[in-house]
Amino acid sequence: MHYDGFMDKQRKNIVVVGGGTGVFTVLSGLKKYGHNLSAIVSMADDGGSTGILREEFGILPPGDIRRALVALSDADRLMADLFNYRFEKHGSVSGHSFGNLLITALEQITGDFERAIVEAGKILAVRGEVIPVTLQKTKLHAKLENGKVVAGETNIDVPKHNPELRIKKIFLEPRATINPRATAAILGADIVVLGPGDLYTSVLPNFLVEGMRQALQDTKAKRIYICNIMTKHGETHAYKASDFIKEILRHTGESGVDYALVNRERPDDHKMKLYHQEHAYFVEPDKEAEAAGTKVIFGKFLRTSGSLLRHDPEKLARAILEIDIRK
Amino acid sequence: MHYDGFMDKQRKNIVVVGGGTGVFTVLSGLKKYGHNLSAIVSMADDGGSTGILREEFGILPPGDIRRALVALSDADRLMADLFNYRFEKHGSVSGHSFGNLLITALEQITGDFERAIVEAGKILAVRGEVIPVTLQKTKLHAKLENGKVVAGETNIDVPKHNPELRIKKIFLEPRATINPRATAAILGADIVVLGPGDLYTSVLPNFLVEGMRQALQDTKAKRIYICNIMTKHGETHAYKASDFIKEILRHTGESGVDYALVNRERPDDHKMKLYHQEHAYFVEPDKEAEAAGTKVIFGKFLRTSGSLLRHDPEKLARAILEIDIRK
Repeated sequence: MHYDGFMDKQRKNIVVVGGGTGVFTVLSGLKKYGHNLSAIVSMADDGGSTGILREEFGILPPGDIRRALVALSDADRLMADLFNYRFEKHGSVSGHSFGNLLITALEQITGDFERAIVEAGKILAVRGEVIPVTLQKTKLHAKLENGKVVAGETNIDVPKHNPELRIKKIFLEPRATINPRATAAILGADIVVLGPGDLYTSVLPNFLVEGMRQALQDTKAKRIYICNIMTKHGETHAYKASDFIKEILRHTGESGVDYALVNRERPDDHKMKLYHQEHAYFVEPDKEAEAAGTKVIFGKFLRTSGSLLRHDPEKLARAILEIDIRK
Repeated sequence: MHYDGFMDKQRKNIVVVGGGTGVFTVLSGLKKYGHNLSAIVSMADDGGSTGILREEFGILPPGDIRRALVALSDADRLMADLFNYRFEKHGSVSGHSFGNLLITALEQITGDFERAIVEAGKILAVRGEVIPVTLQKTKLHAKLENGKVVAGETNIDVPKHNPELRIKKIFLEPRATINPRATAAILGADIVVLGPGDLYTSVLPNFLVEGMRQALQDTKAKRIYICNIMTKHGETHAYKASDFIKEILRHTGESGVDYALVNRERPDDHKMKLYHQEHAYFVEPDKEAEAAGTKVIFGKFLRTSGSLLRHDPEKLARAILEIDIRK
């Protein structure tokens, strides 16, 4: 049984939940199949250009919104390049991404973050919706196994703490409630995809928002988690696939996801070398993953091009859509 | 005889030459009449956001380009607001105008300033062309009557020199030659409008570009100069209408313009007060203007709204189009 998008005449509603580049990967793979796509993105990001703009303009973080908009864009390549363009590190615009500035300017003019997203989406000829998981400003915190609390997504992501300490708990402070458009998208979905992406700083922060877990429980959609290819020092050090899945289920509820896609293709040693320097290692597709409480599909999801170890958008899309036609 | 745009079925090619807000005023007045509009804008600007971007990115000045694009935009108001949006003075984007950043980013991505203008124009749904008078990087210089040379448009515009000294001569260093698209636009025009705008820093710098004067001499278009309403300290201190016209003719050639539109409506004292604080005074519509070498049309061109003394776009447009139907 192999999925062919052209055989399936029915347009599905597919919602991708995440943050960072993972959302981009999944959306860009799914795009050509003609389904209705939307992205629910975490509002926990506080690093780099996004972090500076948050601080200076008091806006919600634009970075992940921008990446999702670009993924859904039907405009020509130049517009995507424009949105992703980063001004030189030095000088008066100091490392800002153009798309972040655009969303910031639109937010400042309209006073409405969601309106800003819609207008930026028009410029990019976006098909689909990009939905901030919450419209409330909040900050991600992590409690480590030694009891220490780290505040701020960047500080968790690029740790100054001992990166081999496990993260025991993450929470938002102040608390944040779900954007009603996120609820509507999840309840109306045929498929909800979680991840891939940094577990504690991109994917799971969405489920710390009040109402998200419930929405995922209530939807009739097939819920698919995409497990990361590599561990991340300071976040998921030494995690196996089963650890990722357990953490997802711990945050989304006992039957929070129906399927997990786990890559079983070991990358070339020379590609892994770069990662090993960062203390990032291949996520073992361990057999325990199947015992963790969800159906697990092991597959070869590696992108062959490029030096970074990423999921192949097309392979992911096919795997997702094949799950959908399972009885 | 009163001009009615709907009586005139023929689309005219109208070219507006200038810089700064004057081009915006003329274009926005002419826009609704359905003619083919283009703008040739000076590349001498080196102040503010534009100046910083020139220095940091080595690009041609985007500021006047942006204003002309906005004037020709058919997009909704929000897009114009976006292009003109200026980031806060303090902080990491320090007073930059969004549109300038957009043009800069597009230029950096494509490596082509004119391509950047075209792409920015698409976002703004621009009808018409915006043409940099030259594609060569150059700097405006002014020689004062005391022999001192001032380098840079901003330094002339916001003078540190004695602002009552007359400007004896302006020149570009290094020399710059005309953009072939500017030649083509002028030769193909039915009407060429010069100004309004700062005489030595916005309007005349165009005619320092080699080839511009010749193009204006060679065109069969009616050539109309729009004289400023107020003098400017350090540039046109104590100038009467005849002085403006003489300077225009000195730079464009003896029969460089066919008509001059001179405002004869004296503004309210309370509006002028603000200007007097800046040592700017009403430009006297003196009778000598007619002897200066071109036909002069005195009229009431003042905008009634707002506290700034500006030409009324609609009144200007009507005056321009009425000249066009003269035999």
